[in-house]
Amino acid sequence: MTAPIALTLGDPVGVGPEIAVKTADLVRPTSPYTPVLVGDIEAAKRGAQACGVTTPLISISHPGQAGHVDGLAVWDTGVLGTDLPEWGKVDARAGKAAVTAIEWATKAAMDKEVTAVVTAPINKEAIWASGSTHLGHTEMLKELTGAAWSDTMFVVRNGPTHLRIFFSTRHVALRVALEQLRDPELVSQAINRAVESLKAFGVDHPRLGVAAVNPHGGENGNFGDEEIISIRPACEDARKRGLDVHGPIPADSVFHQGLEGRFDGVLSHFHDQGHIPAKTVDFNGTISVTVGLPILRTSVDHGTAFDIAGTGVANHLTMQSAFEAAVDYAPFVPKIRQAYLS
Amino acid sequence: MTAPIALTLGDPVGVGPEIAVKTADLVRPTSPYTPVLVGDIEAAKRGAQACGVTTPLISISHPGQAGHVDGLAVWDTGVLGTDLPEWGKVDARAGKAAVTAIEWATKAAMDKEVTAVVTAPINKEAIWASGSTHLGHTEMLKELTGAAWSDTMFVVRNGPTHLRIFFSTRHVALRVALEQLRDPELVSQAINRAVESLKAFGVDHPRLGVAAVNPHGGENGNFGDEEIISIRPACEDARKRGLDVHGPIPADSVFHQGLEGRFDGVLSHFHDQGHIPAKTVDFNGTISVTVGLPILRTSVDHGTAFDIAGTGVANHLTMQSAFEAAVDYAPFVPKIRQAYLS
Repeated sequence: MTAPIALTLGDPVGVGPEIAVKTADLVRPTSPYTPVLVGDIEAAKRGAQACGVTTPLISISHPGQAGHVDGLAVWDTGVLGTDLPEWGKVDARAGKAAVTAIEWATKAAMDKEVTAVVTAPINKEAIWASGSTHLGHTEMLKELTGAAWSDTMFVVRNGPTHLRIFFSTRHVALRVALEQLRDPELVSQAINRAVESLKAFGVDHPRLGVAAVNPHGGENGNFGDEEIISIRPACEDARKRGLDVHGPIPADSVFHQGLEGRFDGVLSHFHDQGHIPAKTVDFNGTISVTVGLPILRTSVDHGTAFDIAGTGVANHLTMQSAFEAAVDYAPFVPKIRQAYLS
Repeated sequence: MTAPIALTLGDPVGVGPEIAVKTADLVRPTSPYTPVLVGDIEAAKRGAQACGVTTPLISISHPGQAGHVDGLAVWDTGVLGTDLPEWGKVDARAGKAAVTAIEWATKAAMDKEVTAVVTAPINKEAIWASGSTHLGHTEMLKELTGAAWSDTMFVVRNGPTHLRIFFSTRHVALRVALEQLRDPELVSQAINRAVESLKAFGVDHPRLGVAAVNPHGGENGNFGDEEIISIRPACEDARKRGLDVHGPIPADSVFHQGLEGRFDGVLSHFHDQGHIPAKTVDFNGTISVTVGLPILRTSVDHGTAFDIAGTGVANHLTMQSAFEAAVDYAPFVPKIRQAYLS
């Protein structure tokens, strides 16, 4: 029997419990993987009430029990008990609960007790208030799994075609990203990691499209030189090493070409360059996969939305897309494990 | 009887004649506006042959005759005669022919003999070789119409919703655009022109979404300061002046919101920021409208594609979208004329 897929509740006073419970309820009847909610059962119950889910929530003490209960399985972390913090307020106990759920789910994935981990949003201030020093989800997962590095792979599921978007710079100001991009080594490493990730995620001979950053790809230096200084040399170097790397390609074409299926992945160079096409094409269908970890982890790309938490209006579609992406990539878990288990 | 819509052939050795003739042939049976091709009739005939259009091409000597011929009307500029330059090679005579077609069509629009001008791509080197000093289409049109300024409005036609995208900087390197953007006055003027343009194009009370440039809108200066220095002040100033301006909004959300119909237009801040969402959502449906001119002019957003010119493989869909957008905006021609005729 296949191991279930874990859905963490995220911050229990954010929209996480609602969207996780709703997703679990919707996918349970037909998914090849049983969903198992990970977090405080009382928080899950409050989330169910907020979004009108009436399926019973059943406490289990081991993920292996998830497929055997008549209801939604909740692997109860028991941090909060019955004393739930108020919706929508940064709270240290809520932060502790969020961290604990991630720790349990990650360990279970490392131990092959769950197939994948799908995470609901957490609040950074809350996890810091709880005493955690992690910058966020990704850093926590990196430490918990002993991974050497981790990156974000954005996935837009366009029917049978998955557009996978990688990033050569992180979460920094656009002008800082432009500075960093002048280093061909940085772009080379981003290309390598993207190609490796695609392989780990089931693409045997990855075709990577690499975006340019200037209008029309800079038109041979007339409109910017990042293509000449770093992006083109890094692409050429990759091709010399036998990689099927294309570009630099003007950024207003490369994502379209990716969606058409010409590439298995596209390397973007700054946060919005990759986020804009993904979210404009499919706002609710765009999800995030963490690559570089020895476990399969997918995630929503939105926050805790404290302003609407508990009201039942939160849209669960991205969480459902994250679950479905975990199902799609589940066959490659052994490969992912092999690629990244140090 | 309504005046026809002009389609210029663009550079006669590029893909222009093919896509213009094919579009005219496809729209003629059902469009409320008769298409009239403007350029050399021999170039049009060669284009028809390349793309397999068999409808007869009929030479007319005045656009008013377009609706009365049994075939595709070509307002023959007679620059090339029967001696056509070779496909796909920069040629001064071809440049001269392209310029002449634009001049004729623009004058006809100014004189209300055509309702709108839809332009096929030209080659800058060819028009320079012909002795023209214009930087391109837009500059030429600005001079020919005596307009005080002109801007590009991108249009993505998403069913009944038109997402209209404006730009606060022009065709410059990304790092130059970021420098220019630090001037709140530049952003203010871009907001004003966008709002004015939306009014001229039929939106009585325009709602404008203004993009941010940094990740998550800069998160209060943690990831870049352009929002604080110029974009936010310009938005606030516009709101004080009673304009319905929203933002700065993270750029990975604002285009999605625009497509949902929450805004009539979105102001982007650099070339690719506006081009990426438009072309990723609908590569062939994204067209360009020149605002600030006293005439209605729509255009494809691609080049002459010399490498495939004459082979019949060029995709005419963007040209057809540009024609259809001209039909959509045709009712506002008097308003556009009133707004911008100096």
